[in-house]
Amino acid sequence: MKRILQIALPLTLAAAAAAAQGMWMPQQVPELAGRLKESGLEIDPTRLADLTGFPMGAIVSTGGCSASFVSPEGLIATNHHCVYGYLQYNSSAERDLLTNGFLAGSRAEEIQASPDAKIFVTTRIEDVTAQVLSRLDRMSDGVRAQTIERRRKELVASCEKPGGVRCRVDSFFAGTQYLRTTQMEILDVRLVYAPSQSIGNHGGEIDNWMWPRHTGDFGFLRAYVGPDGRPAAHSADNVPFHPRHWLKVSSADLDEGDFVMLVGYPGTTYRYETAEETRDRIDFSLPESIRYREALIEILEREGERGRAVGIANASRIRSLANLMKKYRGTLEAFERADFLSRRTEEESRMRSLMSNDPELVQRHGEVMAELRSIFARERATRERETVLAWLYAASPMLTQADTLYELSRQRAKKDVERDADYQERNWSVIRSRIARAQRTVEPGSDRAGLRNILQQAVALPENQRIEAVDAALAATGKATTEEQIDAFLDGLYGGTKIADRSFREDLFDDTTAQIAARNDSMIVFAADLRKLVDANKARKQADDGAFARLRPHYMEALRAVRGELLAPDANGTLRVSFAEVKGYEPRDAVRYAPFTTAEGILEKETGEAPFNAPPALLSMIRAKRFGPYADPDLGSLPVAFLATGDITNGSSGSATLNGKGELVGLAFDGNYESMGFDFVVNPEISRSIHVDSRYMLWVMDAVDQADHLLREMGIEPRL
Amino acid sequence: MKRILQIALPLTLAAAAAAAQGMWMPQQVPELAGRLKESGLEIDPTRLADLTGFPMGAIVSTGGCSASFVSPEGLIATNHHCVYGYLQYNSSAERDLLTNGFLAGSRAEEIQASPDAKIFVTTRIEDVTAQVLSRLDRMSDGVRAQTIERRRKELVASCEKPGGVRCRVDSFFAGTQYLRTTQMEILDVRLVYAPSQSIGNHGGEIDNWMWPRHTGDFGFLRAYVGPDGRPAAHSADNVPFHPRHWLKVSSADLDEGDFVMLVGYPGTTYRYETAEETRDRIDFSLPESIRYREALIEILEREGERGRAVGIANASRIRSLANLMKKYRGTLEAFERADFLSRRTEEESRMRSLMSNDPELVQRHGEVMAELRSIFARERATRERETVLAWLYAASPMLTQADTLYELSRQRAKKDVERDADYQERNWSVIRSRIARAQRTVEPGSDRAGLRNILQQAVALPENQRIEAVDAALAATGKATTEEQIDAFLDGLYGGTKIADRSFREDLFDDTTAQIAARNDSMIVFAADLRKLVDANKARKQADDGAFARLRPHYMEALRAVRGELLAPDANGTLRVSFAEVKGYEPRDAVRYAPFTTAEGILEKETGEAPFNAPPALLSMIRAKRFGPYADPDLGSLPVAFLATGDITNGSSGSATLNGKGELVGLAFDGNYESMGFDFVVNPEISRSIHVDSRYMLWVMDAVDQADHLLREMGIEPRL
Repeated sequence: MKRILQIALPLTLAAAAAAAQGMWMPQQVPELAGRLKESGLEIDPTRLADLTGFPMGAIVSTGGCSASFVSPEGLIATNHHCVYGYLQYNSSAERDLLTNGFLAGSRAEEIQASPDAKIFVTTRIEDVTAQVLSRLDRMSDGVRAQTIERRRKELVASCEKPGGVRCRVDSFFAGTQYLRTTQMEILDVRLVYAPSQSIGNHGGEIDNWMWPRHTGDFGFLRAYVGPDGRPAAHSADNVPFHPRHWLKVSSADLDEGDFVMLVGYPGTTYRYETAEETRDRIDFSLPESIRYREALIEILEREGERGRAVGIANASRIRSLANLMKKYRGTLEAFERADFLSRRTEEESRMRSLMSNDPELVQRHGEVMAELRSIFARERATRERETVLAWLYAASPMLTQADTLYELSRQRAKKDVERDADYQERNWSVIRSRIARAQRTVEPGSDRAGLRNILQQAVALPENQRIEAVDAALAATGKATTEEQIDAFLDGLYGGTKIADRSFREDLFDDTTAQIAARNDSMIVFAADLRKLVDANKARKQADDGAFARLRPHYMEALRAVRGELLAPDANGTLRVSFAEVKGYEPRDAVRYAPFTTAEGILEKETGEAPFNAPPALLSMIRAKRFGPYADPDLGSLPVAFLATGDITNGSSGSATLNGKGELVGLAFDGNYESMGFDFVVNPEISRSIHVDSRYMLWVMDAVDQADHLLREMGIEPRL
Repeated sequence: MKRILQIALPLTLAAAAAAAQGMWMPQQVPELAGRLKESGLEIDPTRLADLTGFPMGAIVSTGGCSASFVSPEGLIATNHHCVYGYLQYNSSAERDLLTNGFLAGSRAEEIQASPDAKIFVTTRIEDVTAQVLSRLDRMSDGVRAQTIERRRKELVASCEKPGGVRCRVDSFFAGTQYLRTTQMEILDVRLVYAPSQSIGNHGGEIDNWMWPRHTGDFGFLRAYVGPDGRPAAHSADNVPFHPRHWLKVSSADLDEGDFVMLVGYPGTTYRYETAEETRDRIDFSLPESIRYREALIEILEREGERGRAVGIANASRIRSLANLMKKYRGTLEAFERADFLSRRTEEESRMRSLMSNDPELVQRHGEVMAELRSIFARERATRERETVLAWLYAASPMLTQADTLYELSRQRAKKDVERDADYQERNWSVIRSRIARAQRTVEPGSDRAGLRNILQQAVALPENQRIEAVDAALAATGKATTEEQIDAFLDGLYGGTKIADRSFREDLFDDTTAQIAARNDSMIVFAADLRKLVDANKARKQADDGAFARLRPHYMEALRAVRGELLAPDANGTLRVSFAEVKGYEPRDAVRYAPFTTAEGILEKETGEAPFNAPPALLSMIRAKRFGPYADPDLGSLPVAFLATGDITNGSSGSATLNGKGELVGLAFDGNYESMGFDFVVNPEISRSIHVDSRYMLWVMDAVDQADHLLREMGIEPRL
């Protein structure tokens, strides 16, 4: 590894100044200082490395979305789609917050977002690489993975404290580096303001991933803490949290070519996989995932025709299946458009030629690549079975619930540090609320129909990839044909389970494995039988992970050498900053998308029917061109959304978009269609992040929703 | 009228210099000279008024399309879709010219385009207004209309000569001016070259009316004349016609903002109708036409399921119904987008205020408008009936054939000058070939199904708008319900006719009315019965036309005064020039269409299946970027099609698009979707003409089809 770095060094120096694409760790930013100054960053780049300073101290996470403080009183701006669940939670037949939006007229009217709602404020990042990776050389791969896992858990345990101190240890650069992040976990989060759905979700599914866009995708929360200023459970006595830093919401001009940066908590990317892994994605995993999703959507839609209650229960599952299906299709298109596989293959051949002067290095590289190949080959040998296994759970939320409860009983028997991370005591509250929430989507008829389809796939698996638990269960029915066997098995499975009953599941939460077994619930019995294969796979995967911990850092370094530039690590849910430029693009020959949409575009799209049914008040203000100080001088109109070259992924939603001065000019809420491969590859020519413009946010608050007190709290005098 | 002109004059002078939108008569061009020089016209504007000079002498008509001479040997360039019928005519199962295209390797290989194919070369335009309009004042409206009609026919008759001299007298500015055009009619037209369908009709119906566009919509004909240089019927002895002028096909640079002019024979527009007529279009005639078309398309498609032969017979009817339906929908959208009705209403109110100082004029204007209103009211009173009547013929090609033959027998009994223009002896050959050609679309089952639907509409007409011939025919069946009556009547109608038989129709061509009646063909009997209402309508319409001849010139002048600018007359099939700029547009918020498409766009659209299946040779030349001297320096690629602000309508297809030097830079072949209201209104912001770029034409000829001898004939040395 060291040897490769030596080759890389001159190249790294040469190219570092040109590299700004990527989701950068704050501590990497000083290395990019020169380039950033040139691009338009006006504040001192080293300030971005200070997590508790301005502006990074203002950037928070909701657990799934990014967000930011925008007042000294703990007011938080994020996307409308990030507060969607909270609006849903607080809605009733009489009070439809989803449709109508919500505006608390005063602090007293601010309502608890949901019992699960949290805000995470990053307070510290430490390098714990040495503690995680020391003395691993002579371990077997399986033991190495276990050891790394245990050390990460110990580092978390020694850091967390009651009263809202949460910690995490994350791997960077494919296990080359480990960092521990300490976060303040705020437990009392309240809903302050969200525009109506026809603004916040304007364009709905039709415009999702699309440009031109006119979605006012913003909403406001407030963080509350105990009177002592420390995180506390929701209580009437709580007071607004006073962050040390907050962002100024800008109403200043923003133009094409301007520098912006996106700051938030992007989820997960896989940008440094090998050419072989990429080929497997293209040949198998992405198309297979699309195929399974397509089939399940069809089943859930057909089931939904049985009645409105079934339709409602299945709606969110269908939406999420369809959303990922669209994304995977887009990913395959992006691979092709970027010629990604050829480029990665070519990079791998350049790795070899870079090393050609050093026979020892060549040999080591050859060994690494050969060992990676053999792992991939081993995984490939059972990929059809593992896909079917995963889809048994994805198709059946009831089986997933049974599995969770059964596995919880097994894990509870262990010492906490020995438990799988998901099942550690610190996550029990999450498991508990997931068990409760599952009630919204559990629908036995649809569950059975979905599972039936996957059982047919299981039956069709090749001889050397059988799922024994399935084969045994079907054989035990004593029926002649597999179709009869499946139906008989499903009769027993759904006839002998109470797992669809929320209180039954909650009763099981504290069961030991013996107690849970004694209940003799058919779904839990099936889940327990399947666990044999799951356990075996876990052990194999642990061995793979141990090997990867040895091998991937080498590949990563070789890739860095080939690129000859500073690389940003894969997204892993930690705080990142991505530098960008406000910029349109050319989606196809003779068509150019401008980087800003305007209010007039809302009039163009208006049909009077969702999702293009903007509120009459908004329409009449636009027709009268009453844009006040929020109009853009160049556009001669009110900007609504804008495009930038920001590097985003799932979890980036709600990211603060800052101008060169560190002022909030927008919130990232989507990527364009052409960006959809972003989990793996970014094509800077046409990949774009989509942002709601802060001037539109302020205008809606001022002119449409009269959120005057919030504007004043943010230091803005209402004008309309 | 004079009085209004006096008001208008100062305004006219002020605005004349700014006016260049419109399809101008060549003789109007000198009045626009200043403006045109400024816009980029380099040749002397007065030269455009000289019909037999350069470049106007090179512009010809095929009867339905515009075209132009591009070599001294009578080579003619026009659109691929204008030579489509000729390719079809010359195709056979063994020799599919439509799919594969056609290239004559030498003069000897040039084949007759079709027996009907003609080329019209305009040789003279005379003002005959005085002859048409003298001493009409004291006539009744009906007699006035008859008199005008008779004088026009006399002016034609006295002008036409055997040996290819054809004449026409057309009304300009709603009957304010009459011009007689003399044309040389070339009768021997040969097919020289057309690219394959996958180039010439690239994008097919999907891209029709659309941008971005990649259609190589061009093809070449050659005009042949007798050895004496005069028009002659097709013969092996004929020789290429030597025009006095031809266009140079340009391979020079063309950029956004450049001046171009479109020269051709646009068909018919209705740009100067009153607000009330516009409202009737919006409220009744366009939506009704869409509704009837939609119903008939559905019927013809359903009938087509009976078998392939039926499907083929109905295909071209469906395509033409659908094409107009799309156009009418687009027209309604264009009306709304341009706020056309309000604008015309506002113009009419400005007419009144312009005249307010002159009580006499106000009174006269009031009388004109009141009289127009009463005519419109009278027409409106029976519009439902007249719509049904028209659709009886549109739905039933067999009824149309019967009516044509019956009416021909009636008209033949008159002196030629008394005949309706369509039935004058000079048009008998056209009628004869239409009777023969009808065979391709006559399909009795579909005919009956279509007619059945319209009969149901006739039955539903209000009491005061009955069609007696239909009522009588249904009553005569003696059946109880109207549905039974319709079926019984149709049984008799289709059981007792031989009109679907081509030779039967051809036998009838020379019949007298008595002879034709004696044949007792049920379809002809029905057509004859319907003629009573048609004749009555014709008489009423003649009275309207006579009134319009008095009234419309007044309205036209008032509109000209309000506009304060020179106006181009409505298109009427005569030679026109429209001045334009190469220019993109913004179809919707944040989207801009560039004015040029490039060869790379063909690669983007390529699917391998029609209509996106470009020839492999073309694709590989594009991939290799072998564009030779035809590449555009700014685009860095080969331009394929371009947008201009040209004013076009049906018939403009094939118009020569000239640069400021008068060189051919493209051929107009379509309008964009947003231009579709062009029959009535042009919105210069977004209405665009679409042209195939001459550089793409030359490149395809040079690099793909090796039409080297044609390039050399046009003075271009092949390079690829």
